[in-house]
Amino acid sequence: MGLSYTTTHQVQFYECDIHKQLTLPMLMSVAITAGELQTYSLDPTADAYLEEHHLGWIITNHSLDIHQFPKENEQIFVTTEAESYNKFFCYRNFYIHNQQGKCLATMKSVFSLMDLETRKIVTVPEEVISVYQSEKIKRIHRFPVVPDPSGEMLAQENYRVRYFDLDTNRHVNNARYLAWMLDVLPFSFLEKYEPTHIEISFQKEIEYGNTISSQCEERESTEADKETAHYIYNQDVLSAKALISWRQRNENE
Amino acid sequence: MGLSYTTTHQVQFYECDIHKQLTLPMLMSVAITAGELQTYSLDPTADAYLEEHHLGWIITNHSLDIHQFPKENEQIFVTTEAESYNKFFCYRNFYIHNQQGKCLATMKSVFSLMDLETRKIVTVPEEVISVYQSEKIKRIHRFPVVPDPSGEMLAQENYRVRYFDLDTNRHVNNARYLAWMLDVLPFSFLEKYEPTHIEISFQKEIEYGNTISSQCEERESTEADKETAHYIYNQDVLSAKALISWRQRNENE
Repeated sequence: MGLSYTTTHQVQFYECDIHKQLTLPMLMSVAITAGELQTYSLDPTADAYLEEHHLGWIITNHSLDIHQFPKENEQIFVTTEAESYNKFFCYRNFYIHNQQGKCLATMKSVFSLMDLETRKIVTVPEEVISVYQSEKIKRIHRFPVVPDPSGEMLAQENYRVRYFDLDTNRHVNNARYLAWMLDVLPFSFLEKYEPTHIEISFQKEIEYGNTISSQCEERESTEADKETAHYIYNQDVLSAKALISWRQRNENE
Repeated sequence: MGLSYTTTHQVQFYECDIHKQLTLPMLMSVAITAGELQTYSLDPTADAYLEEHHLGWIITNHSLDIHQFPKENEQIFVTTEAESYNKFFCYRNFYIHNQQGKCLATMKSVFSLMDLETRKIVTVPEEVISVYQSEKIKRIHRFPVVPDPSGEMLAQENYRVRYFDLDTNRHVNNARYLAWMLDVLPFSFLEKYEPTHIEISFQKEIEYGNTISSQCEERESTEADKETAHYIYNQDVLSAKALISWRQRNENE
């Protein structure tokens, strides 16, 4: 296990959905921020090193468990740890707790370093990784594989990449993919069900001005639980896919 | 002058644009949050009162001056004061300062109370306004009028209202209108210019599933400064309009 780091966050109204809960894309962004803050606290020059070597972190996978969504105005604690790394992948975990110490959500993520000129993944340099004191491993952690499309599409929408979909790295932020995935679901579905588990894998970059197709399939379905599969296509290229488990909302929560 | 209230905010990476600056919609949201926090600090039961009387705050105007955009990771101070009110309108000001005490932005906003069942504006009840100790006035503050469209359209795009465009009040959040207004501008324009002044007036509500048209006109133009006018139409109904002044970015800032 590498070093861990904890920050606090107060959930703002503009980060919440109609249920007065932190949205799923925001939950992901809030978690990632803890990693950024850890990097800065351990090495304020880390960004300059990456810039000098034209390197950028990219995320290839998130595996997310949500026990309870943080609520509007709630103070939450976000802990992250740089678990381990091998030649090409860095494994980082995130834990969100409430003030009573209850674990609300956990996320396991895979980061890689990209050469921003060649757009290729590079070996993780010791200079970058050493500050986190994470364990060097030889094996590769396997994340559950999101199944390929079955062809039984439930819903589809097109999205043009907008100016505000770009983040400070001039890339479409990972959290946007998830917003496109959820938005195709019927309003009545999003009113009634909430996600409990998400496996998402990012395959290809998407650029400003691209028009993507967000497609959704229903995989499993009971009254209480659902499972949906999601695919983001840029032209004909699969850019991201995800599997989401849902449970019926408890209105008394 | 009514009571004032100050809160702090650390600018997160996911609140920033490609210039590593707080986006304009986020700047507006961060300001509004200070008003919400003031309300809660003065009267934690205020929301319950509004809910019981099926009332909700709506915003009709913002007049925004930006001297300098807050930057990624910057700690800012957001001060708000409930300046004054008359029968139908409440005037609230916002000031954003940096840690050196420099004023980065100011916003003057007009709030009204809507009966959420009849969708009509109602008289501001003493029970709601008294906690802010703001001045009761008879006159109506006039905000600069945004000119009607000239017909010389520069750019236009359609936007379907998405699930995540809705906020905790199940309304399209005001900040989204501004995102639609800016997104139609060419990327090269948004790279080169930054807004210095915004007059925005909200005319009609927009609902989930509506498709709106965001239209933009160029009003004034020199190499260093531009002025654009923006119109949001829902079908043929004008839902919001804005006038934005721009200056060429200083890359050394």
